[in-house]
Amino acid sequence: MSDLKAKILSEVADELSAIERELVENLSPWSDLAGEVAGHLLFSGGKRLRPLLMILAARACGSEREDLSRYAVLFEYLHAATLIHDDLVDEAVTRRGKPAAHHVYGAPEAVLTGDFILARCLSLTAQTRNFAIIDEICGITEAMSQGEIQQLHNKGRLDLSEAEYLDVIERKTAVLLKGACVTGALLADQSPEGVEAFGRFGWHLGMAFQMADDLLDYTADLEALGKEPGADLREGKLTLPVIHALAKASPEERAMMEKVMADPGFTSGAFCALVEKLKTLGGIDYTRASAEAHVACAKEALKVLPQSREKELLLLVADYSLERKS
Amino acid sequence: MSDLKAKILSEVADELSAIERELVENLSPWSDLAGEVAGHLLFSGGKRLRPLLMILAARACGSEREDLSRYAVLFEYLHAATLIHDDLVDEAVTRRGKPAAHHVYGAPEAVLTGDFILARCLSLTAQTRNFAIIDEICGITEAMSQGEIQQLHNKGRLDLSEAEYLDVIERKTAVLLKGACVTGALLADQSPEGVEAFGRFGWHLGMAFQMADDLLDYTADLEALGKEPGADLREGKLTLPVIHALAKASPEERAMMEKVMADPGFTSGAFCALVEKLKTLGGIDYTRASAEAHVACAKEALKVLPQSREKELLLLVADYSLERKS
Repeated sequence: MSDLKAKILSEVADELSAIERELVENLSPWSDLAGEVAGHLLFSGGKRLRPLLMILAARACGSEREDLSRYAVLFEYLHAATLIHDDLVDEAVTRRGKPAAHHVYGAPEAVLTGDFILARCLSLTAQTRNFAIIDEICGITEAMSQGEIQQLHNKGRLDLSEAEYLDVIERKTAVLLKGACVTGALLADQSPEGVEAFGRFGWHLGMAFQMADDLLDYTADLEALGKEPGADLREGKLTLPVIHALAKASPEERAMMEKVMADPGFTSGAFCALVEKLKTLGGIDYTRASAEAHVACAKEALKVLPQSREKELLLLVADYSLERKS
Repeated sequence: MSDLKAKILSEVADELSAIERELVENLSPWSDLAGEVAGHLLFSGGKRLRPLLMILAARACGSEREDLSRYAVLFEYLHAATLIHDDLVDEAVTRRGKPAAHHVYGAPEAVLTGDFILARCLSLTAQTRNFAIIDEICGITEAMSQGEIQQLHNKGRLDLSEAEYLDVIERKTAVLLKGACVTGALLADQSPEGVEAFGRFGWHLGMAFQMADDLLDYTADLEALGKEPGADLREGKLTLPVIHALAKASPEERAMMEKVMADPGFTSGAFCALVEKLKTLGGIDYTRASAEAHVACAKEALKVLPQSREKELLLLVADYSLERKS
C-alpha cells in the first residue's frame, strides 16, 4: 500500500466503519436471495470512495449531523447497482479479485439484484427529504445509464474521438463523484456557491479517477488490479491512452495497433507491444497529464473553503486518484 | 374486441392520446440508442392501464389539474422498465406479438435501457414535489425487484404454496396498480381516508389482474395473447391454477401433472391434457373465483366516492380485468 493511501485510511477509519455498518443495516432485503447476491458485490472490499466523499464534503462545510453515514451509503448502493449491471453487460469475469456476481448467481439474478440495490438507494435518497438531493440522484441515474449505453454503442469504434470519450466518462463516472460531493454540501446547508464549488471538485476528481482507471488497464499488473489488464481493449472499448496514440500514429503504426485490437484473444506479447506503442506515441503521458490537470482543477475548487481536517483529506484523496494502483 | 373493452376505449380516447403524447415527450433520451430500444417496447401497443388508472383516480377525486397525463406516464415507464428486465430474465421470445427487446437489440442493451427508462420514471416522480408520491414509487421499485427475484428463486418449485404465490404477485403486480391509484388521489389532494380507499381499489384490482393473466396462460389462444400459451409452465413458474390443482390432486394425478411440468419441451397434446386436469381439479374455477372476489373488493372500496364519469370508468376497468382476452 502506498504511504498516501495508508495515511488516508488511518485518518478515516471511523468514517469507514460507520459506512460498513450502515451498508449492512440499510440493505434490509425481504428476499434472502436478493440480500445474498447484493452482499456478494457490496461486501467484497470496495474502497467506499463515494460515501466517504459525501461525508468529508459535509464535514468540511462544518456539518455535525449524525446521520451522514446513513445517507452516504446511498452512493455505494448506486455505485454497486451500476457495477453489477455493467459487469454483466461487459461479460466481465472478475470484480475485485472475485468472480463477478453474474458468474456466481446467474445473469437473471444479477439484473434483478442491480434493480433491488438501486431501489434501496432511491429509498434512502427520498428519506433525506431534500428535493435538491433527490434531483441530483435522479439526474445521476439518467446520466449513468445513458453513458453506459453510449459506451456499449461505441464498442469497437476505432474512430472514437477524445470528445466522445470525455462525454462517456463524464456520464459514467464523474457525475456520481460530483453528486456525492454536492449532496454532502447540501446536507450541510451550504450556500449555492459552496455547493457549486463541491460540484466542481467532485466532477474534476471523477474525470481524473476514470482517466487513472483507464490508464491502469494498460499499466497495472493482474494482482494489484484484481482483474486481467487489457480488459478494455479486449472488449473493444477505446480509452484515452489509445485514442490519443491513434491520433498521433503513422499509417504503419496505426495498422499495427488496429491489428492487435481486431483480435480479442491477443497474446500478452502483442499486448505488451501495444502498450509500448502507447508510450512512444504519448498516449500514456497525455492521459496522465489530463488526469493531473483535472486533479489541479479539483483542488483549486476547494480554495474557497476554510482550513479543516476534512478539507485536507479531500485534497489527499485528489492526490491519491493519480497514484493509486487499483 | 369485447363490448366492455370497446366501451372503455371510446370513453378514454382523449386520456389515451394525452398519455401517448407525454410518453414521447418525456422520454427525451440523450443517447439515440437508448431512445430506440426504449421505444421498441414503449410504443408497441401497451394497454396504458397504469397511467389511465392514475388519471381516472385523480379525476374521480375531482381534480382538474392539467398536468395529470404528464405524471401518469411515470407508471408506464416503471412498467416498461420492469417488463424489459423481466423478459430478459425469463428469456421471453416475444412481447405484445413482437420480438422481445433483448432479441432485437441484445441483452446488454436491454439491461441498460431498462435502467434508463426507470431513471426517467424517477425524474418525473421527483418533479411532482410530493414526498408521499416519491415514497410510494420508491417502495414500488423495491417491492417489484424483490418480487421478481423471489419468483426467479421459486422457479421449478413444485411445492409452492398459495401464500407464497400471493406474496409474489402482490409485489410484482398489485403494488404498481395500487401506486397508480394512490398517486392519482395524492395529486388530487385527497384525504388520507380517500387515498387509502384508492389504495385498496388498486391493490385488489392488481391481484385480480395478475390472477386473470395467469389464467390466460392456460386458457387463451396464441393470437389473442401475443405469445405462446403455457409460457409460465415452460419457465417452471407455478401459478394459482396449478398450485390449487396440485393441492387437490390424487397421487396419480399429481404424478401425471409433474411429468408434464418436468419437461419444458412438452407437446401441445400434453399441455391440453394438463389444462383439462386443471379444469377437473378446480384450479381454473378457483383462480377465477379468487380474481372475482378481488374485483368485488376493489369495487367495494370505491363505494365512499360520489358518482362521477371517472368512478364509473374505474368500475368498468375492474370488470374488464376478468373478461380480458390478452
